[in-house]
Amino acid sequence: MKKIGVVLSGCGVRDGSEIHEAVFTLLAIDRQGAEAVCMAPNVEFPVTDHSTMQETGSKRNALVESARIARGNIRDIKEVKAADLDAIIFPGGFGAAKNLCDFAMKGAGAAVQPEVARLLKEMAVAQKPIGAICIAPVLIATVLGREFGPTLTIGNDSGTATEIEKTGAIHQDCPVRDFVVDKKNKIVSTPAYMLATHISEAYEGIDRCVKAVIELI
Amino acid sequence: MKKIGVVLSGCGVRDGSEIHEAVFTLLAIDRQGAEAVCMAPNVEFPVTDHSTMQETGSKRNALVESARIARGNIRDIKEVKAADLDAIIFPGGFGAAKNLCDFAMKGAGAAVQPEVARLLKEMAVAQKPIGAICIAPVLIATVLGREFGPTLTIGNDSGTATEIEKTGAIHQDCPVRDFVVDKKNKIVSTPAYMLATHISEAYEGIDRCVKAVIELI
Repeated sequence: MKKIGVVLSGCGVRDGSEIHEAVFTLLAIDRQGAEAVCMAPNVEFPVTDHSTMQETGSKRNALVESARIARGNIRDIKEVKAADLDAIIFPGGFGAAKNLCDFAMKGAGAAVQPEVARLLKEMAVAQKPIGAICIAPVLIATVLGREFGPTLTIGNDSGTATEIEKTGAIHQDCPVRDFVVDKKNKIVSTPAYMLATHISEAYEGIDRCVKAVIELI
Repeated sequence: MKKIGVVLSGCGVRDGSEIHEAVFTLLAIDRQGAEAVCMAPNVEFPVTDHSTMQETGSKRNALVESARIARGNIRDIKEVKAADLDAIIFPGGFGAAKNLCDFAMKGAGAAVQPEVARLLKEMAVAQKPIGAICIAPVLIATVLGREFGPTLTIGNDSGTATEIEKTGAIHQDCPVRDFVVDKKNKIVSTPAYMLATHISEAYEGIDRCVKAVIELI
Protein backbone atom coordinates (compact mmCIF):
# COMPACT_ATOMS: atom_id res chain seq x y z
CA MET A 1 0.00 0.00 0.00
CA LYS A 2 1.35 3.42 -0.97
CA LYS A 3 2.22 5.62 2.01
CA ILE A 4 1.39 9.30 1.71
CA GLY A 5 2.79 11.66 4.31
CA VAL A 6 0.38 14.38 5.47
CA VAL A 7 2.15 17.23 7.26
CA LEU A 8 -0.12 18.97 9.76
CA SER A 9 0.57 22.16 11.72
CA GLY A 10 -2.15 22.28 14.39
CA CYS A 11 -5.94 22.13 14.25
CA GLY A 12 -7.74 25.24 13.00
CA VAL A 13 -7.47 27.57 10.01
CA ARG A 14 -6.08 30.59 11.89
CA ASP A 15 -3.37 28.96 13.99
CA GLY A 16 -2.88 25.48 12.52
CA SER A 17 -3.97 23.22 9.68
CA GLU A 18 -7.18 24.16 7.89
CA ILE A 19 -9.39 21.36 9.18
CA HIS A 20 -11.55 20.82 6.07
CA GLU A 21 -8.48 20.72 3.83
CA ALA A 22 -6.70 18.23 6.08
CA VAL A 23 -9.77 15.95 6.32
CA PHE A 24 -10.36 16.01 2.54
CA THR A 25 -6.70 15.11 2.03
CA LEU A 26 -7.09 12.09 4.32
CA LEU A 27 -10.35 11.07 2.58
CA ALA A 28 -8.85 11.32 -0.91
CA ILE A 29 -5.82 9.25 0.13
CA ASP A 30 -8.07 6.51 1.53
CA ARG A 31 -10.34 6.50 -1.52
CA GLN A 32 -7.25 6.03 -3.72
CA GLY A 33 -6.38 2.89 -1.73
CA ALA A 34 -3.31 4.51 -0.18
CA GLU A 35 -2.38 4.99 3.49
CA ALA A 36 -2.02 8.39 5.15
CA VAL A 37 0.97 8.90 7.46
CA CYS A 38 0.07 11.95 9.54
CA MET A 39 2.88 13.93 11.11
CA ALA A 40 3.58 17.35 12.60
CA PRO A 41 6.52 19.16 14.18
CA ASN A 42 6.77 19.21 17.97
CA VAL A 43 6.61 23.03 18.25
CA GLU A 44 4.54 25.52 20.23
CA PHE A 45 2.39 28.16 18.56
CA PRO A 46 0.25 31.13 19.73
CA VAL A 47 -3.46 30.25 20.00
CA THR A 48 -6.21 32.10 18.09
CA ASP A 49 -9.76 31.96 19.48
CA HIS A 50 -11.67 30.92 16.34
CA SER A 51 -14.97 32.35 17.61
CA THR A 52 -13.47 35.88 17.71
CA MET A 53 -10.36 35.41 15.51
CA GLN A 54 -8.32 37.14 18.24
CA GLU A 55 -5.06 35.77 19.66
CA THR A 56 -5.55 34.59 23.25
CA GLY A 57 -1.98 35.01 24.51
CA SER A 58 -1.71 31.29 25.31
CA LYS A 59 0.21 28.59 23.44
CA ARG A 60 -0.50 25.05 22.25
CA ASN A 61 1.66 22.34 20.66
CA ALA A 62 1.33 21.63 16.92
CA LEU A 63 1.95 17.87 17.28
CA VAL A 64 -0.62 17.51 20.07
CA GLU A 65 -3.30 19.59 18.32
CA SER A 66 -2.71 17.94 14.94
CA ALA A 67 -3.44 14.60 16.65
CA ARG A 68 -7.09 15.76 16.84
CA ILE A 69 -7.35 15.67 13.04
CA ALA A 70 -5.43 12.38 12.89
CA ARG A 71 -7.55 10.72 15.60
CA GLY A 72 -4.37 10.06 17.59
CA ASN A 73 -2.50 8.33 14.76
CA ILE A 74 0.32 10.83 14.37
CA ARG A 75 4.13 10.91 14.30
CA ASP A 76 6.68 13.56 15.16
CA ILE A 77 8.01 14.70 11.78
CA LYS A 78 11.58 14.39 13.06
CA GLU A 79 11.14 10.59 13.08
CA VAL A 80 9.97 10.41 9.43
CA LYS A 81 12.34 9.95 6.49
CA ALA A 82 11.67 10.16 2.75
CA ALA A 83 12.40 6.41 2.59
CA ASP A 84 9.24 5.84 4.72
CA LEU A 85 6.98 7.61 2.17
CA ASP A 86 5.91 7.36 -1.47
CA ALA A 87 4.64 10.97 -1.58
CA ILE A 88 3.97 13.87 0.80
CA ILE A 89 1.12 16.39 1.00
CA PHE A 90 0.88 19.69 2.90
CA PRO A 91 -2.67 20.90 3.68
CA GLY A 92 -3.08 24.64 4.19
CA GLY A 93 -4.23 26.86 7.02
CA PHE A 94 -2.21 29.68 8.57
CA GLY A 95 -0.22 27.02 10.46
CA ALA A 96 1.53 26.09 7.20
CA ALA A 97 2.80 29.69 6.90
CA LYS A 98 3.25 30.39 10.65
CA ASN A 99 4.15 27.11 12.40
CA LEU A 100 5.95 25.17 9.63
CA CYS A 101 7.74 28.34 8.50
CA ASP A 102 7.39 32.09 9.13
CA PHE A 103 6.41 33.11 5.59
CA ALA A 104 3.26 34.81 6.95
CA MET A 105 5.48 37.26 8.84
CA LYS A 106 8.59 37.43 6.59
CA GLY A 107 7.55 36.52 3.03
CA ALA A 108 10.18 35.16 0.66
CA GLY A 109 12.97 35.40 3.27
CA ALA A 110 11.14 33.01 5.62
CA ALA A 111 12.86 30.52 7.91
CA VAL A 112 11.51 26.96 7.84
CA GLN A 113 11.16 24.58 10.79
CA PRO A 114 14.33 22.47 10.36
CA GLU A 115 12.71 19.00 10.31
CA VAL A 116 10.05 20.18 7.83
CA ALA A 117 12.77 21.59 5.55
CA ARG A 118 14.85 18.42 5.93
CA LEU A 119 12.01 16.04 4.95
CA LEU A 120 10.82 18.25 2.09
CA LYS A 121 14.33 18.41 0.61
CA GLU A 122 14.73 14.64 1.02
CA MET A 123 11.48 14.09 -0.90
CA ALA A 124 12.52 16.45 -3.70
CA VAL A 125 15.97 14.89 -4.05
CA ALA A 126 14.36 11.41 -4.12
CA GLN A 127 12.00 12.70 -6.86
CA LYS A 128 8.95 11.63 -4.85
CA PRO A 129 5.70 13.56 -5.50
CA ILE A 130 4.80 16.56 -3.34
CA GLY A 131 1.31 18.03 -2.94
CA ALA A 132 0.62 21.50 -1.52
CA ILE A 133 -2.80 22.93 -0.75
CA CYS A 134 -4.02 26.50 -0.19
CA ILE A 135 -1.18 28.60 1.29
CA ALA A 136 1.19 25.61 1.73
CA PRO A 137 2.89 26.21 -1.66
CA VAL A 138 4.72 29.15 -0.02
CA LEU A 139 6.52 26.57 2.11
CA ILE A 140 7.48 24.53 -0.96
CA ALA A 141 8.73 27.70 -2.69
CA THR A 142 10.75 28.76 0.36
CA VAL A 143 12.49 25.38 0.67
CA LEU A 144 12.82 24.36 -2.99
CA GLY A 145 12.50 27.63 -4.95
CA ARG A 146 16.14 28.46 -5.59
CA GLU A 147 17.36 24.92 -6.31
CA PHE A 148 14.41 23.45 -8.23
CA GLY A 149 12.44 26.46 -9.59
CA PRO A 150 9.08 24.73 -9.08
CA THR A 151 5.85 25.90 -10.71
CA LEU A 152 2.94 26.13 -8.28
CA THR A 153 -0.26 27.98 -7.39
CA ILE A 154 -1.86 29.67 -4.42
CA GLY A 155 -4.85 30.74 -6.56
CA ASN A 156 -4.59 34.33 -7.80
CA ASP A 157 -3.43 36.54 -4.90
CA SER A 158 -0.86 38.79 -6.57
CA GLY A 159 0.91 39.85 -3.36
CA THR A 160 1.58 36.28 -2.29
CA ALA A 161 2.44 35.28 -5.88
CA THR A 162 5.07 38.06 -6.00
CA GLU A 163 6.68 36.81 -2.78
CA ILE A 164 6.64 33.23 -4.13
CA GLU A 165 8.46 34.30 -7.29
CA LYS A 166 11.18 36.01 -5.21
CA THR A 167 12.21 32.52 -4.04
CA GLY A 168 12.90 31.36 -7.59
CA ALA A 169 9.60 29.49 -7.91
CA ILE A 170 7.10 30.28 -10.68
CA HIS A 171 3.49 31.12 -9.76
CA GLN A 172 0.62 30.11 -12.03
CA ASP A 173 -2.94 31.39 -11.46
CA CYS A 174 -5.47 28.56 -10.99
CA PRO A 175 -9.24 28.31 -10.41
CA VAL A 176 -10.46 26.82 -7.13
CA ARG A 177 -11.66 23.45 -8.44
CA ASP A 178 -8.51 22.89 -10.48
CA PHE A 179 -4.83 22.20 -9.73
CA VAL A 180 -1.39 22.91 -11.20
CA VAL A 181 1.09 20.12 -11.97
CA ASP A 182 4.84 20.66 -12.24
CA LYS A 183 5.71 17.37 -13.97
CA LYS A 184 9.46 17.89 -13.88
CA ASN A 185 9.54 18.42 -10.12
CA LYS A 186 6.48 16.21 -9.41
CA ILE A 187 4.76 19.01 -7.46
CA VAL A 188 0.95 19.39 -7.48
CA SER A 189 -0.86 22.37 -5.91
CA THR A 190 -4.47 23.57 -5.60
CA PRO A 191 -5.90 26.85 -4.20
CA ALA A 192 -8.60 25.39 -1.86
CA TYR A 193 -9.56 28.05 0.74
CA MET A 194 -7.26 30.67 -0.85
CA LEU A 195 -10.25 30.97 -3.22
CA ALA A 196 -13.06 28.68 -2.05
CA THR A 197 -16.27 30.30 -0.86
CA HIS A 198 -18.00 26.91 -0.53
CA ILE A 199 -16.63 23.83 1.22
CA SER A 200 -17.46 21.70 -1.85
CA GLU A 201 -15.10 23.81 -3.99
CA ALA A 202 -12.22 23.08 -1.61
CA TYR A 203 -13.21 19.39 -1.61
CA GLU A 204 -13.16 19.09 -5.40
CA GLY A 205 -9.80 20.79 -5.86
CA ILE A 206 -8.18 18.73 -3.08
CA ASP A 207 -9.67 15.45 -4.31
CA ARG A 208 -8.20 16.10 -7.77
CA CYS A 209 -4.88 17.32 -6.35
CA VAL A 210 -4.40 14.21 -4.20
CA LYS A 211 -5.27 11.89 -7.11
CA ALA A 212 -2.70 13.72 -9.27
CA VAL A 213 -0.04 13.36 -6.56
CA ILE A 214 -0.66 9.63 -6.27
CA GLU A 215 -0.61 9.17 -10.06
CA LEU A 216 2.90 10.68 -10.10
CA ILE A 217 4.29 7.93 -7.80
CA MET B 1 -31.98 27.91 0.65
CA LYS B 2 -32.69 25.21 3.24
CA LYS B 3 -30.98 25.83 6.57
CA ILE B 4 -29.54 22.78 8.33
CA GLY B 5 -28.43 23.16 11.94
CA VAL B 6 -25.18 21.35 12.81
CA VAL B 7 -24.70 20.94 16.56
CA LEU B 8 -21.03 20.71 17.50
CA SER B 9 -19.52 19.90 20.91
CA GLY B 10 -15.85 20.83 20.62
CA CYS B 11 -13.10 19.85 18.18
CA GLY B 12 -11.67 16.35 18.54
CA VAL B 13 -13.02 12.82 18.80
CA ARG B 14 -12.15 12.25 22.48
CA ASP B 15 -13.37 15.49 24.03
CA GLY B 16 -15.55 17.14 21.39
CA SER B 17 -17.03 16.62 17.93
CA GLU B 18 -15.43 13.93 15.78
CA ILE B 19 -13.71 16.18 13.24
CA HIS B 20 -14.08 13.98 10.14
CA GLU B 21 -17.77 13.41 10.85
CA ALA B 22 -18.43 17.12 11.33
CA VAL B 23 -16.57 18.08 8.15
CA PHE B 24 -18.37 15.43 6.06
CA THR B 25 -21.68 16.71 7.43
CA LEU B 26 -20.82 20.25 6.30
CA LEU B 27 -19.67 18.98 2.88
CA ALA B 28 -22.82 16.93 2.30
CA ILE B 29 -25.04 19.87 3.25
CA ASP B 30 -23.24 22.16 0.79
CA ARG B 31 -23.34 19.57 -2.00
CA GLN B 32 -27.12 19.30 -1.50
CA GLY B 33 -27.42 23.05 -2.09
CA ALA B 34 -28.39 23.72 1.54
CA GLU B 35 -26.76 26.01 4.12
CA ALA B 36 -25.15 24.76 7.33
CA VAL B 37 -25.90 26.70 10.53
CA CYS B 38 -23.16 25.64 12.94
CA MET B 39 -23.81 25.99 16.64
CA ALA B 40 -22.55 24.72 20.00
CA PRO B 41 -23.34 25.22 23.67
CA ASN B 42 -21.25 27.72 25.63
CA VAL B 43 -19.96 25.15 28.14
CA GLU B 44 -16.55 24.11 29.45
CA PHE B 45 -15.21 20.57 29.09
CA PRO B 46 -12.11 18.65 30.29
CA VAL B 47 -9.39 18.47 27.62
CA THR B 48 -7.96 15.20 26.29
CA ASP B 49 -4.48 15.25 24.73
CA HIS B 50 -5.19 13.43 21.44
CA SER B 51 -1.55 12.37 21.00
CA THR B 52 -1.68 10.33 24.24
CA MET B 53 -5.48 10.03 24.77
CA GLN B 54 -4.94 11.13 28.39
CA GLU B 55 -6.91 13.91 30.10
CA THR B 56 -4.71 16.95 30.73
CA GLY B 57 -6.56 18.41 33.73
CA SER B 58 -7.25 21.65 31.83
CA LYS B 59 -10.53 22.88 30.35
CA ARG B 60 -11.65 24.42 27.07
CA ASN B 61 -14.94 25.89 25.85
CA ALA B 62 -17.14 23.88 23.45
CA LEU B 63 -18.38 26.94 21.54
CA VAL B 64 -14.87 28.34 21.09
CA GLU B 65 -13.32 25.01 20.02
CA SER B 66 -16.25 24.15 17.71
CA ALA B 67 -15.54 27.44 15.90
CA ARG B 68 -12.37 25.78 14.56
CA ILE B 69 -14.46 23.28 12.57
CA ALA B 70 -16.90 26.05 11.51
CA ARG B 71 -14.07 28.42 10.43
CA GLY B 72 -15.48 31.02 12.82
CA ASN B 73 -19.04 30.93 11.50
CA ILE B 74 -20.75 29.62 14.64
CA ARG B 75 -23.64 30.54 16.93
CA ASP B 76 -24.35 29.88 20.58
CA ILE B 77 -27.09 27.23 20.53
CA LYS B 78 -29.11 29.23 23.08
CA GLU B 79 -29.77 31.83 20.34
CA VAL B 80 -31.11 29.28 17.82
CA LYS B 81 -34.78 28.32 17.55
CA ALA B 82 -36.45 25.56 15.54
CA ALA B 83 -38.09 28.32 13.46
CA ASP B 84 -34.59 29.26 12.20
CA LEU B 85 -33.94 25.76 10.82
CA ASP B 86 -35.37 23.29 8.30
CA ALA B 87 -33.52 20.32 9.84
CA ILE B 88 -30.82 19.61 12.42
CA ILE B 89 -27.87 17.20 12.46
CA PHE B 90 -25.68 16.02 15.34
CA PRO B 91 -22.21 14.73 14.39
CA GLY B 92 -20.61 12.26 16.81
CA GLY B 93 -17.46 12.21 18.88
CA PHE B 94 -17.30 11.78 22.65
CA GLY B 95 -18.38 15.41 23.01
CA ALA B 96 -21.91 14.41 21.93
CA ALA B 97 -22.08 12.01 24.90
CA LYS B 98 -20.00 14.07 27.36
CA ASN B 99 -20.50 17.78 26.58
CA LEU B 100 -24.04 17.83 25.12
CA CYS B 101 -25.23 15.32 27.72
CA ASP B 102 -23.59 12.98 30.24
CA PHE B 103 -24.69 9.69 28.66
CA ALA B 104 -21.04 8.53 28.51
CA MET B 105 -20.95 8.60 32.32
CA LYS B 106 -24.60 7.83 33.24
CA GLY B 107 -26.18 5.89 30.35
CA ALA B 108 -29.95 6.03 29.92
CA GLY B 109 -30.45 8.28 32.96
CA ALA B 110 -28.30 11.03 31.45
CA ALA B 111 -28.88 14.74 31.92
CA VAL B 112 -28.83 16.86 28.77
CA GLN B 113 -27.43 20.38 28.38
CA PRO B 114 -30.65 22.45 28.70
CA GLU B 115 -30.37 24.46 25.45
CA VAL B 116 -29.54 21.30 23.48
CA ALA B 117 -32.59 19.54 24.95
CA ARG B 118 -34.78 22.60 24.31
CA LEU B 119 -33.84 22.91 20.60
CA LEU B 120 -34.06 19.14 19.99
CA LYS B 121 -37.56 19.01 21.51
CA GLU B 122 -38.63 22.05 19.48
CA MET B 123 -37.45 20.34 16.27
CA ALA B 124 -39.30 17.10 17.14
CA VAL B 125 -42.53 18.91 18.01
CA ALA B 126 -42.27 20.92 14.76
CA GLN B 127 -41.77 17.60 12.89
CA LYS B 128 -38.56 18.86 11.32
CA PRO B 129 -35.98 16.21 10.33
CA ILE B 130 -33.21 15.23 12.74
CA GLY B 131 -29.94 13.51 11.81
CA ALA B 132 -27.65 11.78 14.30
CA ILE B 133 -24.21 10.35 13.54
CA CYS B 134 -22.01 7.83 15.40
CA ILE B 135 -22.71 8.08 19.16
CA ALA B 136 -25.04 11.10 18.84
CA PRO B 137 -28.21 8.94 18.66
CA VAL B 138 -27.81 8.39 22.44
CA LEU B 139 -28.59 12.08 22.83
CA ILE B 140 -31.69 11.79 20.64
CA ALA B 141 -32.83 8.76 22.64
CA THR B 142 -32.25 10.51 25.96
CA VAL B 143 -34.29 13.58 24.96
CA LEU B 144 -36.99 12.01 22.78
CA GLY B 145 -37.06 8.33 23.79
CA ARG B 146 -39.98 8.32 26.22
CA GLU B 147 -42.26 10.68 24.30
CA PHE B 148 -41.55 9.69 20.69
CA GLY B 149 -40.09 6.15 20.83
CA PRO B 150 -37.71 6.81 17.94
CA THR B 151 -35.93 4.06 15.99
CA LEU B 152 -32.22 4.70 15.55
CA THR B 153 -28.78 3.12 15.25
CA ILE B 154 -25.33 3.42 16.77
CA GLY B 155 -24.10 0.47 14.68
CA ASN B 156 -24.06 -2.81 16.59
CA ASP B 157 -22.62 -2.18 20.07
CA SER B 158 -24.95 -4.19 22.30
CA GLY B 159 -24.10 -2.39 25.54
CA THR B 160 -24.91 1.03 24.13
CA ALA B 161 -27.97 -0.37 22.32
CA THR B 162 -29.30 -1.72 25.64
CA GLU B 163 -28.92 1.68 27.30
CA ILE B 164 -30.63 3.34 24.33
CA GLU B 165 -33.62 1.01 24.63
CA LYS B 166 -33.99 1.86 28.34
CA THR B 167 -34.99 5.38 27.23
CA GLY B 168 -37.96 4.07 25.24
CA ALA B 169 -36.15 4.32 21.90
CA ILE B 170 -35.68 1.30 19.61
CA HIS B 171 -32.21 0.34 18.43
CA GLN B 172 -31.66 -1.19 14.99
CA ASP B 173 -28.29 -2.66 13.95
CA CYS B 174 -26.85 -1.02 10.82
CA PRO B 175 -23.70 -1.46 8.66
CA VAL B 176 -21.22 1.42 8.50
CA ARG B 177 -21.99 2.65 4.97
CA ASP B 178 -25.74 2.55 5.56
CA PHE B 179 -28.26 4.50 7.65
CA VAL B 180 -31.54 3.97 9.49
CA VAL B 181 -34.63 6.10 8.80
CA ASP B 182 -37.49 6.54 11.27
CA LYS B 183 -40.04 7.98 8.84
CA LYS B 184 -42.68 8.68 11.47
CA ASN B 185 -40.33 10.76 13.61
CA LYS B 186 -38.18 11.97 10.68
CA ILE B 187 -34.99 10.79 12.38
CA VAL B 188 -32.03 9.50 10.35
CA SER B 189 -28.93 7.91 11.92
CA THR B 190 -25.69 6.30 10.70
CA PRO B 191 -22.90 4.51 12.62
CA ALA B 192 -19.84 6.35 11.16
CA TYR B 193 -16.87 5.89 13.53
CA MET B 194 -18.85 3.61 15.85
CA LEU B 195 -17.94 1.05 13.15
CA ALA B 196 -15.72 2.71 10.54
CA THR B 197 -12.15 1.48 10.21
CA HIS B 198 -11.55 3.65 7.13
CA ILE B 199 -12.36 7.34 6.78
CA SER B 200 -14.12 6.64 3.45
CA GLU B 201 -16.63 4.38 5.24
CA ALA B 202 -17.59 7.21 7.59
CA TYR B 203 -17.81 9.57 4.62
CA GLU B 204 -20.19 7.33 2.68
CA GLY B 205 -22.56 6.72 5.57
CA ILE B 206 -22.66 10.41 6.50
CA ASP B 207 -23.14 11.55 2.91
CA ARG B 208 -26.16 9.23 2.58
CA CYS B 209 -27.49 10.16 6.03
CA VAL B 210 -27.39 13.91 5.29
CA LYS B 211 -29.10 13.44 1.92
CA ALA B 212 -31.84 11.41 3.63
CA VAL B 213 -32.33 14.13 6.25
CA ILE B 214 -32.66 16.82 3.59
CA GLU B 215 -35.09 14.69 1.54
CA LEU B 216 -37.36 14.52 4.61
CA ILE B 217 -37.78 18.33 4.74
